Amino acid sequence: MATKIHHLGIAVKDLDAMVTFYQQQLGLEMVQTVAWEELGLKAAVLKVGEVLVELIEPVAPKGSVAESLERLVKAQDGGVHHLALEVDDLAGTVERLRTAGVPLLDQEPRQAAGGQIAWLQEEAASGTLIELCQAGYRIM
Amino acid sequence: MATKIHHLGIAVKDLDAMVTFYQQQLGLEMVQTVAWEELGLKAAVLKVGEVLVELIEPVAPKGSVAESLERLVKAQDGGVHHLALEVDDLAGTVERLRTAGVPLLDQEPRQAAGGQIAWLQEEAASGTLIELCQAGYRIM
Repeated sequence: MATKIHHLGIAVKDLDAMVTFYQQQLGLEMVQTVAWEELGLKAAVLKVGEVLVELIEPVAPKGSVAESLERLVKAQDGGVHHLALEVDDLAGTVERLRTAGVPLLDQEPRQAAGGQIAWLQEEAASGTLIELCQAGYRIM
Repeated sequence: MATKIHHLGIAVKDLDAMVTFYQQQLGLEMVQTVAWEELGLKAAVLKVGEVLVELIEPVAPKGSVAESLERLVKAQDGGVHHLALEVDDLAGTVERLRTAGVPLLDQEPRQAAGGQIAWLQEEAASGTLIELCQAGYRIM
């Protein structure tokens, strides 16, 4: 079961401008920058309270997740793209959701660079794209 | 400056079904239900970690915020509608943002039932709708 919001993934049109805005105008703390070259994305991770905010600019998006970020930027200059929840037992959670018939993009936990994650389909949560992260997951 | 995410406002098509999903499948804790009859909205507030999750169903939306929730439901069954940040000094924050030329929906803090809030325009944050809440704000 989810213990906290791990991060929000937010699509932006101009990463540098939005890093400045979130830092200087809203007071979020810069954590790191990330370049996912294989996905054609660049990102910055900031922090507010216990939650990370991942600002993502699609530069030359490849793959379904990257392309959905680009659609959001083209439609309205960006917006909240996904909600990532941290769970203590990702494998058990995914198995329980699968058994309950919840529509999943990942039928099993997926190994990402910073730890294990699993994506639900948007229709599972009425249009909200949800990512589950094993506790200890680091965005990198 | 923002100290934490106060809440996420999430548009949903079927509030009862999504309350069940977020509680039973994801483990969020139910806090309260809310009916904003004058806006034609019904909502439920859940909690995960330090953040509230406000699930909102537009029943008969009236006004620009309520209508933007309905557009999200019609377009894709819902999704994250706004990001609410808690600040210690709302009046000072709004004044600083206004002076910096950040596009605001509220030029001054607005008194809501549960405390003081102010909305930024979506274009301020590249398509993400941001609400600022004075510390101590309660959704009601």
